[in-house]
Amino acid sequence: MDETEIYQRQGLGNRLGFGERPALLIIDFVNSFNDPEWFGGGNIDAAIQSTVGLLAAARENNIPVAFTRIIYAEDGSNAGVFTEKAPRLKELTLNHPMSQIVPELTPIDGELIVDKTDASAFQGTALQAWLTYRRIDTLITAGATTSGCVRASVVDAIAFNYRPMVARDCVGDRAIGPHDANLFDIGQKYADVLSSNELIAYMNEVKSAA
Amino acid sequence: MDETEIYQRQGLGNRLGFGERPALLIIDFVNSFNDPEWFGGGNIDAAIQSTVGLLAAARENNIPVAFTRIIYAEDGSNAGVFTEKAPRLKELTLNHPMSQIVPELTPIDGELIVDKTDASAFQGTALQAWLTYRRIDTLITAGATTSGCVRASVVDAIAFNYRPMVARDCVGDRAIGPHDANLFDIGQKYADVLSSNELIAYMNEVKSAA
Amino acid sequence: MDETEIYQRQGLGNRLGFGERPALLIIDFVNSFNDPEWFGGGNIDAAIQSTVGLLAAARENNIPVAFTRIIYAEDGSNAGVFTEKAPRLKELTLNHPMSQIVPELTPIDGELIVDKTDASAFQGTALQAWLTYRRIDTLITAGATTSGCVRASVVDAIAFNYRPMVARDCVGDRAIGPHDANLFDIGQKYADVLSSNELIAYMNEVKSAA
Amino acid sequence: MDETEIYQRQGLGNRLGFGERPALLIIDFVNSFNDPEWFGGGNIDAAIQSTVGLLAAARENNIPVAFTRIIYAEDGSNAGVFTEKAPRLKELTLNHPMSQIVPELTPIDGELIVDKTDASAFQGTALQAWLTYRRIDTLITAGATTSGCVRASVVDAIAFNYRPMVARDCVGDRAIGPHDANLFDIGQKYADVLSSNELIAYMNEVKSAA
Repeated sequence: MDETEIYQRQGLGNRLGFGERPALLIIDFVNSFNDPEWFGGGNIDAAIQSTVGLLAAARENNIPVAFTRIIYAEDGSNAGVFTEKAPRLKELTLNHPMSQIVPELTPIDGELIVDKTDASAFQGTALQAWLTYRRIDTLITAGATTSGCVRASVVDAIAFNYRPMVARDCVGDRAIGPHDANLFDIGQKYADVLSSNELIAYMNEVKSAA
Repeated sequence: MDETEIYQRQGLGNRLGFGERPALLIIDFVNSFNDPEWFGGGNIDAAIQSTVGLLAAARENNIPVAFTRIIYAEDGSNAGVFTEKAPRLKELTLNHPMSQIVPELTPIDGELIVDKTDASAFQGTALQAWLTYRRIDTLITAGATTSGCVRASVVDAIAFNYRPMVARDCVGDRAIGPHDANLFDIGQKYADVLSSNELIAYMNEVKSAA
Repeated sequence: MDETEIYQRQGLGNRLGFGERPALLIIDFVNSFNDPEWFGGGNIDAAIQSTVGLLAAARENNIPVAFTRIIYAEDGSNAGVFTEKAPRLKELTLNHPMSQIVPELTPIDGELIVDKTDASAFQGTALQAWLTYRRIDTLITAGATTSGCVRASVVDAIAFNYRPMVARDCVGDRAIGPHDANLFDIGQKYADVLSSNELIAYMNEVKSAA
Repeated sequence: MDETEIYQRQGLGNRLGFGERPALLIIDFVNSFNDPEWFGGGNIDAAIQSTVGLLAAARENNIPVAFTRIIYAEDGSNAGVFTEKAPRLKELTLNHPMSQIVPELTPIDGELIVDKTDASAFQGTALQAWLTYRRIDTLITAGATTSGCVRASVVDAIAFNYRPMVARDCVGDRAIGPHDANLFDIGQKYADVLSSNELIAYMNEVKSAA
């Protein structure tokens, strides 16, 4: 019996299905995560390119968009255990070029930019309140890395009772092994993993109720 | 260049090291996760047996111990998106035999039992407040599954600035592929992955400052 | 210039107005808070009697209902700083008669019962996730005490972007001075303070979209 | 029987006492809260002047210091229900002169600055993680307003199992009635209310264990 059979037999891996009010969350697509000299590599650049279309569809359909960035204070006052594990994160300060969202996905006025210091987009941020204000029930996610901030955000999202959707071709990682392993876990337990085309079709259909 | 080299070059995978005040967190070692007909299988039973010694060392050294269980309301009032993904979780009600902590690890008076409905031991629970009251800085973890509730709890623990330690032989999963892949991610980004012998030696040394 | 003028001049005290999907939250109307020998007294019993009609209206209109209770573990394992301030709270264990919701307001199947150890209904609980699953935007509150758990819950509710509504005649306190002072603060900064009749009319109008 | 007697008879109002590792939290002492044309007035300026000595004592004794400010995005993307209640808060953007910490209390390198959008210093922020990293058990608070952000922060602090201490002469409000009423509630249920001299003596004694 292979792994997928075990999960199926235990009732995991069900399709969640879409809700009525989606938002798009683009996680840590900043310069440092698209540079193999920093935290990038693997299939991240391809994921960024695929996200251009996903973002355009959200904007066309008036669907709320939020971005996250990792931002640490210049003086190190908010460093912690996570930066002991990954010290170079501390270099990602507010005005550092590597902290900026990649040019292909530059936010426009009215889109939320969440500055965070940890893996999940929800920890220590007001993202959940922003979603509540818009009565979002479905969270479409793209970003980097699949095995890091994307997964952590999706695990929180389902715990908070959002329907997480992961755009398979819009998430990327520095190495393909962890990318694939995490998409397996995510699809079995925390989200529906779909193509950006399927998610664009959904956004075109639902539009925003806002 | 293999995966470990990529992580090393990007400054990931550092050893955190121990703090001064540990607690032991035993995650979801309940009957349903030790039964392949429910959510068990793989190497979970072996992990439970290894945890017996870890728990004994914590108790001998007066180190605070917390357990988690998944508990849903009989009337389904607190079911949500996670139970759409994994419907059988709803059967784990307060008095169901499958919801009980395994006999080898029965809690004793004064140990915390955290009832939760989601993957992380922290989401929707008062675990963080309990740790704060004891001024814990180091969180030793055991439990099931490695790719599920253990990982989610460890990701939250480091975001909250605890030093997470995972007892390699005291965590288990229904399938070995996800177990191994998640131990890799955890060790690179979220915790020190150590043997139970190393963690027992640490507990013997530090004892509780309480 | 009196106090209300100061608040008005600074732009506080605006009416929020209703949203589209309300829930009813009944806070700590348990026997101990209706007994002056425990934590009761003042106008709490009158508030309980007024809440009977509010609850009936919610049920008739299929509006989700949640209750909170304060519940501490028998063995004291989850006591903390709050029980140092108010030690008798520790006596409110799961099966103690004083911990039970008052007979006039007994929950029915499918209504959420939130067990908590602190003032706010949100701290250390999964209430926010329950509200998200139902896409609630408006939180109608009743309960005790006005200056304690009601206020703390309302302050959290607005931070999480719910529209808090306080049923003026359905909240009570052990002493009238703090009751009045807190209704003033709440109305100026955190909620709309309305009569139960106004809130019943709203519930009759909106019904549940569920 | 007067109010204090009722509280005393119900076992409220106990003195918490100090812990071993304090931090100082200075809440919203920014220009807008010291200007009666914005959100100021009352006894806020006097509270700021008293806080100068409290801050100096913390610095001399190497006790961690955190400040909060209310900061909203220029484009209104993170406005919500709270800014419907108090619309002028939206004007407090990152670079607005009214958003800056008052000159008497300018932070120095290494002190945490928490930007927030709600009353509590903990909601939607990483303050709790910062306290955990320093193993703080005692939270000394100053700031404005007593009936607003100070109270909300103190209520969260005790729920999270910190020992909240309020410096009576270092908290202020736009109007004295709410100031006094909230100090009563806080002292009965959520914190020890002490003079800045008592708190300075404590800080001189305990110093930082860091």
